[in-house]
Amino acid sequence: MRVLGIDPGLTRCGVGVVDVESNRTARLVDVVVLRSPADLDTPRRLARIADGIEAILEEHRPQAVALERVFARSDVSTIMGTAQISGVAMLIAARRALPVALHTPSEVKAAITGYGRADKAQVGAMVARILGLDAVPKPADAADALALAICHAWRTGGVAGAAVLDSAAATTVTDASTLTPAQRAWLAAERSAAVSGAARRLKE
Amino acid sequence: MRVLGIDPGLTRCGVGVVDVESNRTARLVDVVVLRSPADLDTPRRLARIADGIEAILEEHRPQAVALERVFARSDVSTIMGTAQISGVAMLIAARRALPVALHTPSEVKAAITGYGRADKAQVGAMVARILGLDAVPKPADAADALALAICHAWRTGGVAGAAVLDSAAATTVTDASTLTPAQRAWLAAERSAAVSGAARRLKE
Repeated sequence: MRVLGIDPGLTRCGVGVVDVESNRTARLVDVVVLRSPADLDTPRRLARIADGIEAILEEHRPQAVALERVFARSDVSTIMGTAQISGVAMLIAARRALPVALHTPSEVKAAITGYGRADKAQVGAMVARILGLDAVPKPADAADALALAICHAWRTGGVAGAAVLDSAAATTVTDASTLTPAQRAWLAAERSAAVSGAARRLKE
Repeated sequence: MRVLGIDPGLTRCGVGVVDVESNRTARLVDVVVLRSPADLDTPRRLARIADGIEAILEEHRPQAVALERVFARSDVSTIMGTAQISGVAMLIAARRALPVALHTPSEVKAAITGYGRADKAQVGAMVARILGLDAVPKPADAADALALAICHAWRTGGVAGAAVLDSAAATTVTDASTLTPAQRAWLAAERSAAVSGAARRLKE
């Protein structure tokens, strides 16, 4: 499954593309931080970022777009630009009939590091480890975009368009020996979560 | 000068087109409230509204787009959708090389009614009067979009792409007899503002 992750921003917009197999191994396809100069007016800045997103979609043809869910209570100084970029990104995806999933920062952190309040350095380090990179992608927007893409693939069990991880998808993983220790730990954790989720649903 | 005014919203997006002469008379060209169903996902809702905006741009070919300036401190429940739609509207305008102007609600109210804290009924009534309509455009999003478009044309002196009213534009008005009493009052007020602005600049 090929996923495009977007960490939306008007000044810096992280865009990462990963290929994630059903056994949860992930490979870096591309990562870029799109920028727009602060002295340009907002419409032109939005168009600059939109052009960049479209070029990457055109080049890499992902099957899904994962976007950070922006909250109205976030940092007031940047919230408007962030919300505008996320609107633009959603429009671009919708016009290409690509499924769009929103994940909160704590969902991404929990999926990648196992801890919903992990800091940027921890997320970056785990992204590098999951993708087998020698160094943490810089700036943080690049690592965050990749984390979003990986999070999305993992949460959906690598099935394009799927909304949540289901236990059937988790059980398609047969060869755990190709996984890194972190991936194995994650797989075990998510399997147990999927099982307990199924058990909970049975009880309800 | 033909202006498209947009009162951005995800559930209801008011879009109005007016022709405004350099003597400040304004004529209604079109007004519509675009809607998107709440049970659709956000990307598809944004695309639905974007399609509507593009159709109106295509049909009426305005020279400028006036958009309500959205503040991060506005109503939290609707702010994200509003910001996303405004981002989408700005992108559409930028890609057509149309100038985009943002006006705050109080700027619009002040331009239309003379009072920055006017209520929706007062704004609607003045919009109907300025455009010579028998009834106030409904819903309020429609009247607000028209108010934005008129405000923009008046503030720029009817010159496409101009950022502020200047006294040269104001003095092109020669035949005040074709104006409504409200327009005459406004013209006088803005002329005096322009004169005092010029006087202030001379002193500086």
